[in-house]
Amino acid sequence: MNQQIVLKNRPEGKPSENDFEIQEIETGEIKAGEILLESKYISVDPYLRGRMRDEESYIEPFKLGKPIESMIVAEIVESKNPNFSIGEHVIGMLDWKKQQIHTGEDLRKLDKSLAPLSAYLGVLGLTGVTAFLALDKIGNLKSGETLLVSGAAGAVGSIAGQIGKIKNCRVVGIAGSDEKTEHIKEKFGFDAGINYKTTANITKAIENACPDGVDVYFDNVGGEILNAALQNINKAARIICCGAISIYNSTEVPTGPRPEGILIKKSAVMQGFLVRDHIQDFQRAIEGLAGWLKSGKITYDETIIEGFENTPKAFIQLFEGRNTGKMLVKI
Amino acid sequence: MNQQIVLKNRPEGKPSENDFEIQEIETGEIKAGEILLESKYISVDPYLRGRMRDEESYIEPFKLGKPIESMIVAEIVESKNPNFSIGEHVIGMLDWKKQQIHTGEDLRKLDKSLAPLSAYLGVLGLTGVTAFLALDKIGNLKSGETLLVSGAAGAVGSIAGQIGKIKNCRVVGIAGSDEKTEHIKEKFGFDAGINYKTTANITKAIENACPDGVDVYFDNVGGEILNAALQNINKAARIICCGAISIYNSTEVPTGPRPEGILIKKSAVMQGFLVRDHIQDFQRAIEGLAGWLKSGKITYDETIIEGFENTPKAFIQLFEGRNTGKMLVKI
Repeated sequence: MNQQIVLKNRPEGKPSENDFEIQEIETGEIKAGEILLESKYISVDPYLRGRMRDEESYIEPFKLGKPIESMIVAEIVESKNPNFSIGEHVIGMLDWKKQQIHTGEDLRKLDKSLAPLSAYLGVLGLTGVTAFLALDKIGNLKSGETLLVSGAAGAVGSIAGQIGKIKNCRVVGIAGSDEKTEHIKEKFGFDAGINYKTTANITKAIENACPDGVDVYFDNVGGEILNAALQNINKAARIICCGAISIYNSTEVPTGPRPEGILIKKSAVMQGFLVRDHIQDFQRAIEGLAGWLKSGKITYDETIIEGFENTPKAFIQLFEGRNTGKMLVKI
Repeated sequence: MNQQIVLKNRPEGKPSENDFEIQEIETGEIKAGEILLESKYISVDPYLRGRMRDEESYIEPFKLGKPIESMIVAEIVESKNPNFSIGEHVIGMLDWKKQQIHTGEDLRKLDKSLAPLSAYLGVLGLTGVTAFLALDKIGNLKSGETLLVSGAAGAVGSIAGQIGKIKNCRVVGIAGSDEKTEHIKEKFGFDAGINYKTTANITKAIENACPDGVDVYFDNVGGEILNAALQNINKAARIICCGAISIYNSTEVPTGPRPEGILIKKSAVMQGFLVRDHIQDFQRAIEGLAGWLKSGKITYDETIIEGFENTPKAFIQLFEGRNTGKMLVKI
């Protein structure tokens, strides 16, 4: 039997496994022009939390009782579409189903010989492309500047930090354990790491780790760490608001110190970045990342959870910081 | 006798006249290369409040017991400098003194035949240039977009709104009285006005006045009006943080709803603007404004308080919204 995972309840605060339901379904028969896909790797990402709310956003909310969708790498197991052959691998925004029928529209074929299939969901996928394009479009890093990255051991943050090193910047990462802060220095070449969970005064810790101030802050978390970063920005600093995992589960509108005073004082810019606004630049980003990957200038981590039925659990673990690098489910 | 106005106490919260002191002083004799200036018009501006705090900012704090300085239009009444003649008028960052000795450095000569002297402190001065360059550098207004302006009856806001009309935008202004909201429509061509003092729900009022949403928000006030504006921004909106008069007198760090969520959702940019960072563009801005002034495309208001000794009072009245347009003191 085929299976799908649907949104059962809209989560209140942190999502729980009860908010999801695994259902047995019929796959059906493919018609002319269609293909049958078997999911191989499912990407779970913090931004999916936003789609679980019943509110207007940049992308429409998930419907109750319908499958969640995210980026998935799948193999073609049946084809009545001349453009796709059995055994080929594709990537696209697909339903959380073990198997699904598809027209092939908006799917991109993957070359297994260039990189492992899972890399197309991480360093060569939306997370790598996000790090690349956010720094390209907003960061505008100059040699010798200081880049501060939160969520530094995560899928986006670890790539952002390595791009900072390629651009000859001092790179400081904030993460949630000593293991992670050590790891980002050893594996990704960060110059310093701050464990926000054991640091009493994050503002002061950033000041110490960034003696020349912060020129670019790549924010994946929002909230109090963003406040602390703002206290340390230089004139003309760029704050990339790429994610806000610390507030995604808030049930009330979170408050904090007003930013407008410091933005004025420092002529600083704070800009939201959504990778889907930059589809025209994806190919350039993927080529740039693939080049660095090939030459060994960047590397990546994956946290892979096995088993389709564990997809909700993998998603929930994102909010517990249980992943290092890209969180994936392998079927 | 000559007089000067010094900062006596650093204000706590809203400044009071007790924070200033008028002192009788000797003028002294001018030496070779120097000129004697007589102040004609003194500009009082909200940003001066920031310099009254004893904290590092983009410009050094005023010293206790020393004269305040701001932009002043002065007449040359004595000269031992061959570059300046008696009867000429100049503008520059000068002390709050009736008369002062100066080397002439960093002073700019004014042409009384082009515009009234007071205009060089307003529409052709820092406030006009601020409106022009903030819209030029950050606003990037496109025909048909909606521009929302707070402090719309003020010196910067009234010029910003008129530039919005020149760019074929829908322009909505927020101000603190029905007289002001009527005035900005009648005199400056705003399409709609919102009296924030009598409007129970500013967010809803902005939504009603901006049926296509807000593309550019020119913020002169910060605080709750900024929150309300953020609730109404369109995709790729630009929020110009130009002033924050509503929080300048705060004794504690003011808090408010966190902006990062909405900045991400809307791919919006929130950018601080300090006119002094753009000195290389001043001439272009002044020429642009002077052209529009001459062709009748822009006009301006002044609130002129008479008497040197009333300068502190004029400054304090800024925070009471007692001015329409540029607040000046005439000596």
